[in-house]
Amino acid sequence: MVGNVFGRAFRVMTCGESYGGALLIICEGVPAGMELSENDIQPELDRRRPGQTEFDSPRQEKDQIQIVAGVQEGKTTGAPVGLLMFNVDTQMKHIDEYRSYKDVPRPGHAEITYFMKYGKWTDWVGAGRASGRETAARVAAGALAKKILAREGIEVIGYVSEIHGIASKASGLTVEQVRANIEKTPLRCPDLEAAQKMIDDTLQVKDDGDTVGGVVECRALGVPPGVGEPVFDKLSARIAYGIMSIPSVKGIEVGDGFESAKRLGTEDNDHIYFDDNKKLRFRTNHSGGILGGISNGDDIIVRCAVKPTSTVSVDQPSVNMQSMENVILSPITRRDPTICGRIVPVVEAMVRLAILDLLMVNRGYQAVARNDNPWLDHLAPRPADVWSPPQD
Amino acid sequence: MVGNVFGRAFRVMTCGESYGGALLIICEGVPAGMELSENDIQPELDRRRPGQTEFDSPRQEKDQIQIVAGVQEGKTTGAPVGLLMFNVDTQMKHIDEYRSYKDVPRPGHAEITYFMKYGKWTDWVGAGRASGRETAARVAAGALAKKILAREGIEVIGYVSEIHGIASKASGLTVEQVRANIEKTPLRCPDLEAAQKMIDDTLQVKDDGDTVGGVVECRALGVPPGVGEPVFDKLSARIAYGIMSIPSVKGIEVGDGFESAKRLGTEDNDHIYFDDNKKLRFRTNHSGGILGGISNGDDIIVRCAVKPTSTVSVDQPSVNMQSMENVILSPITRRDPTICGRIVPVVEAMVRLAILDLLMVNRGYQAVARNDNPWLDHLAPRPADVWSPPQD
Amino acid sequence: MVGNVFGRAFRVMTCGESYGGALLIICEGVPAGMELSENDIQPELDRRRPGQTEFDSPRQEKDQIQIVAGVQEGKTTGAPVGLLMFNVDTQMKHIDEYRSYKDVPRPGHAEITYFMKYGKWTDWVGAGRASGRETAARVAAGALAKKILAREGIEVIGYVSEIHGIASKASGLTVEQVRANIEKTPLRCPDLEAAQKMIDDTLQVKDDGDTVGGVVECRALGVPPGVGEPVFDKLSARIAYGIMSIPSVKGIEVGDGFESAKRLGTEDNDHIYFDDNKKLRFRTNHSGGILGGISNGDDIIVRCAVKPTSTVSVDQPSVNMQSMENVILSPITRRDPTICGRIVPVVEAMVRLAILDLLMVNRGYQAVARNDNPWLDHLAPRPADVWSPPQD
Amino acid sequence: MVGNVFGRAFRVMTCGESYGGALLIICEGVPAGMELSENDIQPELDRRRPGQTEFDSPRQEKDQIQIVAGVQEGKTTGAPVGLLMFNVDTQMKHIDEYRSYKDVPRPGHAEITYFMKYGKWTDWVGAGRASGRETAARVAAGALAKKILAREGIEVIGYVSEIHGIASKASGLTVEQVRANIEKTPLRCPDLEAAQKMIDDTLQVKDDGDTVGGVVECRALGVPPGVGEPVFDKLSARIAYGIMSIPSVKGIEVGDGFESAKRLGTEDNDHIYFDDNKKLRFRTNHSGGILGGISNGDDIIVRCAVKPTSTVSVDQPSVNMQSMENVILSPITRRDPTICGRIVPVVEAMVRLAILDLLMVNRGYQAVARNDNPWLDHLAPRPADVWSPPQD
Repeated sequence: MVGNVFGRAFRVMTCGESYGGALLIICEGVPAGMELSENDIQPELDRRRPGQTEFDSPRQEKDQIQIVAGVQEGKTTGAPVGLLMFNVDTQMKHIDEYRSYKDVPRPGHAEITYFMKYGKWTDWVGAGRASGRETAARVAAGALAKKILAREGIEVIGYVSEIHGIASKASGLTVEQVRANIEKTPLRCPDLEAAQKMIDDTLQVKDDGDTVGGVVECRALGVPPGVGEPVFDKLSARIAYGIMSIPSVKGIEVGDGFESAKRLGTEDNDHIYFDDNKKLRFRTNHSGGILGGISNGDDIIVRCAVKPTSTVSVDQPSVNMQSMENVILSPITRRDPTICGRIVPVVEAMVRLAILDLLMVNRGYQAVARNDNPWLDHLAPRPADVWSPPQD
Repeated sequence: MVGNVFGRAFRVMTCGESYGGALLIICEGVPAGMELSENDIQPELDRRRPGQTEFDSPRQEKDQIQIVAGVQEGKTTGAPVGLLMFNVDTQMKHIDEYRSYKDVPRPGHAEITYFMKYGKWTDWVGAGRASGRETAARVAAGALAKKILAREGIEVIGYVSEIHGIASKASGLTVEQVRANIEKTPLRCPDLEAAQKMIDDTLQVKDDGDTVGGVVECRALGVPPGVGEPVFDKLSARIAYGIMSIPSVKGIEVGDGFESAKRLGTEDNDHIYFDDNKKLRFRTNHSGGILGGISNGDDIIVRCAVKPTSTVSVDQPSVNMQSMENVILSPITRRDPTICGRIVPVVEAMVRLAILDLLMVNRGYQAVARNDNPWLDHLAPRPADVWSPPQD
Repeated sequence: MVGNVFGRAFRVMTCGESYGGALLIICEGVPAGMELSENDIQPELDRRRPGQTEFDSPRQEKDQIQIVAGVQEGKTTGAPVGLLMFNVDTQMKHIDEYRSYKDVPRPGHAEITYFMKYGKWTDWVGAGRASGRETAARVAAGALAKKILAREGIEVIGYVSEIHGIASKASGLTVEQVRANIEKTPLRCPDLEAAQKMIDDTLQVKDDGDTVGGVVECRALGVPPGVGEPVFDKLSARIAYGIMSIPSVKGIEVGDGFESAKRLGTEDNDHIYFDDNKKLRFRTNHSGGILGGISNGDDIIVRCAVKPTSTVSVDQPSVNMQSMENVILSPITRRDPTICGRIVPVVEAMVRLAILDLLMVNRGYQAVARNDNPWLDHLAPRPADVWSPPQD
Repeated sequence: MVGNVFGRAFRVMTCGESYGGALLIICEGVPAGMELSENDIQPELDRRRPGQTEFDSPRQEKDQIQIVAGVQEGKTTGAPVGLLMFNVDTQMKHIDEYRSYKDVPRPGHAEITYFMKYGKWTDWVGAGRASGRETAARVAAGALAKKILAREGIEVIGYVSEIHGIASKASGLTVEQVRANIEKTPLRCPDLEAAQKMIDDTLQVKDDGDTVGGVVECRALGVPPGVGEPVFDKLSARIAYGIMSIPSVKGIEVGDGFESAKRLGTEDNDHIYFDDNKKLRFRTNHSGGILGGISNGDDIIVRCAVKPTSTVSVDQPSVNMQSMENVILSPITRRDPTICGRIVPVVEAMVRLAILDLLMVNRGYQAVARNDNPWLDHLAPRPADVWSPPQD
């Protein structure tokens, strides 16, 4: 298994399984001299933690983070930050419980492909690295990115916009409205009326032993123009890469996405204008703040499709990989009826990691290019001052 | 500008602009001893080439490819393959024509963000590297990948499934039907009835000076189980990364994608079974052949949203970046009413590059792991023999 | 600070400082199904650990390693292996002791450049990440690589061949002789007569408050032909990259290195011949087992220059970075009179990491290339059988 | 074959063989707005070009470079720069000539390992990618790096300091003296007296059909403090990586290198002091300008061992890989009696590429870190103003 590293400039590597001893997270590219403590990271982890509502798996994990490297007297030193999170529930406790299931993969789950790839050596205790537990490491790294991005005036905020086909007006809310409502319900849909419908529906589905999927939307505010590399490393491509690497995500769109595909050019083009202060602005934001893979100073808007949790509490046909026979898999009780609410901080984390990484790449480029480039020189100290994003 | 490299094991780097001297493409990871000539690459480029139908920009480029490195007496040597494609139309011819436009960016186009990023030094002749011309390099590299994948029994085929909201039955066609119909119309929709509606609509839109977007679907057949790395480098994530890096693509989904988000778990899970020959199969393919980021042996299915071409032939409000004034941008006549047909080979190319790259990564892992892993040893010589994909 | 990752296929990331909370090490590319326990790693760490002989810093650290990810029931799962090593001595205990020194950098030490780079935020407690303590993480990762390489029949062995200008006959010893003698003295010079001279000299130097440098030689046995990528990623280049990244190493040579520069071509060329069993062999090994950056099946031989420890116990002129004045730095008592013995396992570790990484890259290439390449097919199952290395 | 890419931020990929159609070079990370023409690159290539003196292979190649991408109206656009160099002498002309040799590898040459790795498909016409011709691509990329580094006030200069054991006083010369003398003799040793001895010796050796090796030294002046990443990506490690990847280089040292290994700490430590202008300086430069992998503002000094050209003009024992017999390889007339003079621009190129790459990485870090780090803020606009390098 390779591919446990994300990023070029702000680079993260993680390891750890569902019931292994611990998750480790190493982040490099952290600026020196920034205040950093566990209190910057724990709140984000707490948002993702299971066992808190009736929509989560009942597993109890404290997800307590420790900073073990890169900080001295409360400030970052420039060295890579090392994060450590012990599992409370570990293999030892569960290995016999899981041993009985290990030869019968859950339909829709990654167990079967892990088995195909790693053979009998695959980690079968709670799905190992295919478990949602892996995403806690992403959230921890993302919390660190959040702190750095805040210094640049960049805020990333995600929320549920749809569950099981129940739409909401979340996309139309202002950031202030989203901020105010987002944590009011466990499903993290800021349109509270829709949120109630989603809750009712999901509880009903839960009672039936089933699960539901949904759509998570995410906005990044304050991203200066110029972030994203024009060809393969477009901002949109790197965000898509990050989000599509989250377990259960099956689709991603930027701006109006699949809606744009139905339109005329004249309907989809965002008109450009100078406002009264000679700041460059866009009349609309169909593009989701990204043109040609580069941020245009407007809000970055992305949306992703989350499939229903594959683990359900009803009988399902499956196979026994040992006996090579078709069998019936019994209902599994320990599960999330939906992961939509809990996945919100994970989506935010990946958006932050992708943006911060490309922001650092761009800063490096600008710093070298500025050398004899007066136009950029004028632009660079605070690009947003010149090309300020629309503030609708 | 960085990010002109794609891949880890099969790695591609490209350069070249709309009206620069040439496109260069270097591909490493090419196996030695494979027959390779320009005839393997030219046909794919010809599929993408403009100026061939009433739906393309009228620009005339031969897109003639030359292999200048990595081949000896008609066979690859293992060295990186170097590809060279001169532009016929170059800066010299067009620089004055474009000079008049250079300060007024086209709405919806990347010109404005390139300007924000590179300042007055941005390449303004035909949009430089933001031009669709850059995608010819992807197609050339993809044609090389196609040849290698064919040796592994892997085929990638793309087609248009929707234009301007006109749906088709393309997704429901067999591969044989798709193959038979795909090149019958310039819009490359294999549902010929729908294709005719799309053609009529697009010609009407073209007459109005406008453009349309659409959806391109792509299938990869014969991908063995085990391709894709479980965490950040999921097969789905790397395909999304590649496809979202194509100009004009605003969304991507794998398998049922955003439809899955509306479903119950019991509706979305693909049931697993052994067929009469004890081969592992899946009853349905909602997952698009990828579970936990790893191929399951079933068809890989992806779909992407292509926005309407931003260059339209009607008056549009814009700005003059030199005078800092709001202006009206005059209609531009040289343009594609839709790029959906021409983008098909580009989408195929990126899917091929992503799959080949991860296939090589997986082979490397297996080769080392096999050392004392009899189960994998049994599996590895031809995984498909043991875990054969469903053949519906 | 970036650059905390080493490798492409077998990839390692580390973090942790001299007196931080812990060192974390994540390794990916580990094959599944391999037995692995702390007992595979601890012995290598114990070889590097300080406080054991009169040649080491008296610091007491247990360097106790814990495997916290990637292993299940004693076998690797294919997931990245996570290693954790808590510091016993931590910042808390030493911060006041070091505070008094922090503004006066030690000549020859990295403190001054860290300060130039990270400013006042640099980690000044025991030199932070510039401390030799960082190398414990390399040794831990290298121990894992050792276990994997052993399955491939590859052994890496290092030893001291010179200290403070005192030469030895170590290079001329057989591997068996080296193995037998290497751990007999704390300076790890297998020529025991020379070792005794080195010990006597170093103890004398220690009494004078001074330190000494030396040369470490390292052999890799059993590397099959074909490892190393011909242009930038030559086996020699990647080994040099790895070794030169070890603190205090100022030079590296492969084979006869700088001696070769004094020779005629006819003196330096290693003649090739088939032995009686039609196995390909080389009469001499001036090349150090690498030609054109690719292993030739012969022993890989490298040698590196280790400068004397910069921390000495005599008065030295320096500066106070706070007061901006020239000052005298007082003798420092806690130090290694030479690190040559302790650096041996670190050099071995980097050689192993470089070789394993390129071995995996080569296996991936071969696995894909074999597809229609009968010559390679014949070669690949066990290259050493066909092109066996000389066994003199 | 992978590993044809060098660099992280300033990244170069190359392809092309001895007698292939062309060399292609793509460089990304080039700042926009810099004047660039073929005249910036051609002179460096002309320095490396064969067929110019009695010390070179007589092969006639014009090495004429064309810029085909990344430049508009004489200025860089920020897009990757594409360079193209056609071979005049190509496979077609030489394939029959070389066919007779192809089964008998030259001792000391990479042909045998290429054969072991790529089998019969290896490029046997003039050694393909193992030919020194590959280094022309490095020189072209290095010339571009030279232009960018010049804007930062950084100069890299290399020269021969020893040939066939004949030492020189080159290391002791001032940069002005080196600059004045370097091109006065074809062997590029600026100590003209020693140069004459080297010339006489090499001509004698040439008459005997033999070849000689030597040592190339290289200085980088004006590198600001702070360049180089502390752990694996040390400036010394990346320079070593680059230089050791040059064909025929068998060793590298930084600063006093292997001499340091013979010293006491008190002899080797460079004392730090503030000069009368309160600028930080070092009394000596044993370290070669790098401490802990980070530049200290002093001159960077490296030295590398170049083995004698393996192709000699006397009978040598070898093998026939086809007949599997031991044979005598006849003298080969077309060869360089020494490559030391011609390799100088190649060494300079790799030093430039390594430094520029890490300079850009550091600038990216600083640009982000500066955000709330007043100390760095003060430092960053022109680090050299504050921490000026010693100007002895």
